[in-house]
Amino acid sequence: MAVDHLSTTLSALADPTRRAILARLSTGERTVNQLAEPFKMSLPAVSKHIKVLENAGLIVRGRDAQYRPCRLEAGPMREVSDFVEKYRKFWEESLDRLGEYLHELQRKEKKHGRGK
Amino acid sequence: MAVDHLSTTLSALADPTRRAILARLSTGERTVNQLAEPFKMSLPAVSKHIKVLENAGLIVRGRDAQYRPCRLEAGPMREVSDFVEKYRKFWEESLDRLGEYLHELQRKEKKHGRGK
Repeated sequence: MAVDHLSTTLSALADPTRRAILARLSTGERTVNQLAEPFKMSLPAVSKHIKVLENAGLIVRGRDAQYRPCRLEAGPMREVSDFVEKYRKFWEESLDRLGEYLHELQRKEKKHGRGK
Repeated sequence: MAVDHLSTTLSALADPTRRAILARLSTGERTVNQLAEPFKMSLPAVSKHIKVLENAGLIVRGRDAQYRPCRLEAGPMREVSDFVEKYRKFWEESLDRLGEYLHELQRKEKKHGRGK
C-alpha cells in the first residue's frame, strides 16, 4: 500500500535531528556539509536524514551541481497543522481539567494551613 | 538514546489506521472490539496500534477490568501544533508564491486568447 502524504510528513518530522535540520534551514539555505557541521554525525548519516526530508517534500535541493544547497519547503506542514487543529478543542479541555485540578489542590493546601 | 516526547507523538500519528482510531474516539469512548470493527484487520493488529497510541499518551484505557474502554487524550498534539506553527509563515509564503504563479499563468492564457 502506498504511504499517504500526511503519514510520510509526520514520519519525516518524527526525528529530533531532522527537526534540527529544518530549524537551521529556516534561517536560510545550507549545503549538506554546512548542515552536518553542528551534528556529531558522519556525513552519510546526515545525508540519509536529508534524503528522508527531501522525499517528504520538506526540503528542496538546489540545482548548483557542486553544492546543491538545501532549502526549507514548509508546505507539507500545513496538512499536519490542519490535522491537529481538529483536535484543539480536546487538548484545550484537558488543559482546563488540569487547571481546575491544580486550583483545587491549591485550595486544599491553603485550607490545611500549609499555604503561605 | 531515549526518544523525545514530540518524536514519539509524531511517530504514533504517522499511520492512517492510528489516525482513524483517534478520529473514532473523538466521538466517544470505544472498546478495542468496537474499534477493530470497521478495519479489515485482526484484533491483535488493531491492539498493537492501540498500544502505540497508548504509549504515546494519545489514548487512555479505562479501569473496567473486562472492557478497558479507550479514551482520546489529545494533550500531546498541542506540542505538534506548537512545532508546525513556527513554520506557518514559510508555508504561507509558499502558498502566496503558488498563487502568484497561477495568476501569472491565467494572465498569459488570456493574453494569448485561449481564455474564455
